[in-house]
Amino acid sequence: MAESIRMLSKNTVKFIKSLHQKKFRNQEQKFFVEGEKSVLEVLNSDFSIELLVATESFAEKNRMLIDRSNAQLILATQNQLESIGQYQSNDSALAVVNMKANSPFDFPEDSFVIGLDDVRDPGNLGTIIRIADWYGIKNLVFSAQTADFYNPKVIQASMGSFTRVNFFYGDLAEVFQKWNVPVYGAFLDGKNVHQMKQIQRGVILMGNESNGISDQLEKVVTDKVTIPGFGLAESLNVAIATAILCDNFKRLTIE
Amino acid sequence: MAESIRMLSKNTVKFIKSLHQKKFRNQEQKFFVEGEKSVLEVLNSDFSIELLVATESFAEKNRMLIDRSNAQLILATQNQLESIGQYQSNDSALAVVNMKANSPFDFPEDSFVIGLDDVRDPGNLGTIIRIADWYGIKNLVFSAQTADFYNPKVIQASMGSFTRVNFFYGDLAEVFQKWNVPVYGAFLDGKNVHQMKQIQRGVILMGNESNGISDQLEKVVTDKVTIPGFGLAESLNVAIATAILCDNFKRLTIE
Repeated sequence: MAESIRMLSKNTVKFIKSLHQKKFRNQEQKFFVEGEKSVLEVLNSDFSIELLVATESFAEKNRMLIDRSNAQLILATQNQLESIGQYQSNDSALAVVNMKANSPFDFPEDSFVIGLDDVRDPGNLGTIIRIADWYGIKNLVFSAQTADFYNPKVIQASMGSFTRVNFFYGDLAEVFQKWNVPVYGAFLDGKNVHQMKQIQRGVILMGNESNGISDQLEKVVTDKVTIPGFGLAESLNVAIATAILCDNFKRLTIE
Repeated sequence: MAESIRMLSKNTVKFIKSLHQKKFRNQEQKFFVEGEKSVLEVLNSDFSIELLVATESFAEKNRMLIDRSNAQLILATQNQLESIGQYQSNDSALAVVNMKANSPFDFPEDSFVIGLDDVRDPGNLGTIIRIADWYGIKNLVFSAQTADFYNPKVIQASMGSFTRVNFFYGDLAEVFQKWNVPVYGAFLDGKNVHQMKQIQRGVILMGNESNGISDQLEKVVTDKVTIPGFGLAESLNVAIATAILCDNFKRLTIE
C-alpha cells in the first residue's frame, strides 16, 4: 500500500471543495461521503470510490477494506478533513465517490416504491432514504425538483442508507402511467390509512413540504390516503408522514 | 393603543438576546417566540406575553389580538427582528413570553403520555411536540437532561404545537412508579408493535438519541416495544420512532 499513498495537495482540496456545489458534482459526476460510519458503508457498497482522504489511524484500521476498494488513498489530518468536508468534527475519512447513472427501472414486482414530488429539503430526503431502508423499500423515484440525492446533507441524514437504495429522477406522471400500478398519494383529505385493508404493492407518493402533491400529479394518484389526526397540529413533517405511511403499508402487506 | 407603543431600546435588545441562553431564560423565567405563525399561536394561547416586538404591518393586522393580550407592544423593523431573534427572515413579530411553572400532573385518565429520557436535540424535541399534538396526546414528561422546552429551536420545530401541550421535567422513574400505569418503552428487542392488541393508556417512553433508554429507567418499563424493521438501517431517528409508535397506539385504542 505504502507506495501509492499521496499527501493532500492544494488541487485536491480545491476539487473536493467544489463538490459541495451541485453544479460541480454534476459536471464531475462525483460526490463525497464523510465520517467513519458513512465512509465504511460506502467502502462496503457497490459504489466505486475515486479517492479516499483518511487519517493514518483510519487507514491502518481499515487497510484491507481500502485495498480492496482500489481507491487512491490520501493521508490527511483531522483539521484537513474538517476543512474540506462539511462535518464540524471528522477524525476518520472522506471519500470521493462516483455517481451512478440515472437509470429508470421497471416497477419491482410485489413491492413498494417511494415517490417524492418536489421534496426540497436535503435533511428530509436523507431521512426518507433511511426510513425506506428500515422498511426494506429499496426503490425510490424523484421528480426533477426534488433535492439532490448526492447533496452532502442528504448523504449525512441517510446514515449510510444511501448505499442500499436504487433511485432515479424523472417525470413522475409519465413513470407512474408506464408502471400502471396503484399510486397512493398522501393528502389531508384521503382515506384513513388505519382503515385500509391488505395492500400488496404500489407507489407511496409524498408531496412538497409546503404545497403537497402537485395538481398535475394528483391526476395520476389512484388512492388518496391520510394519516388520521387527533389533535390540532395542522400537518406533519414530510419525513414523519412517510415513515407513518411506510409503517402502515408494511403492516397491511402482512395482515 | 398608540400611547403605549415604544420603540426598541438597546436594553430591550440586550435582554432579548440574553434569552437565547438557557441560563438567562431560567433566571428571567421568560423565553421568546418568533415568526408570524408561532407568534399568532402564542397570542391565541394561555401563555402570558410580556413584550411583543412587531413590525407596523403585523401590529395593524392583529391589533385586536394584541390589545387583548395585554402585551407591551414595541414597533421594530424587519432588520431589527432578525437581529434579535434566530430566524434568518422575520418580517412579522417576536414575543417575549412567561414560562409556565414546572408542575407535575397526575396521570390523565385513559390516555397516553409521552415520556422522553434524555432526548437532547432541540429539533427532535420540537418535532415530537408537533407529533404529540397531531395525535391528540396533550401531556409529556421529560427527564432533567432532556433538551429545554423553551429553547428557540424547540419552539420553532414544534410549529406552534408548544402552545397546546402540558409538560413537566422530573425524575421519570419516580413519576412512573407513582402513576402506576403501563410504561411502553421503545427498544430494539421488544414486542413487535404491529402484533399488539388493544391498548387504552400508558406512557410511550423514548430514549436518548445515542444510548436509548437508560438502564435505571429500563427497570420501570412494563412493556418493551419495537418497530419492526424490514431492511438494513440500524435504527430510526427518535422523532420518527415516536411518530410511528403514537400512530400504532392510537390505532390500537380504536380497534
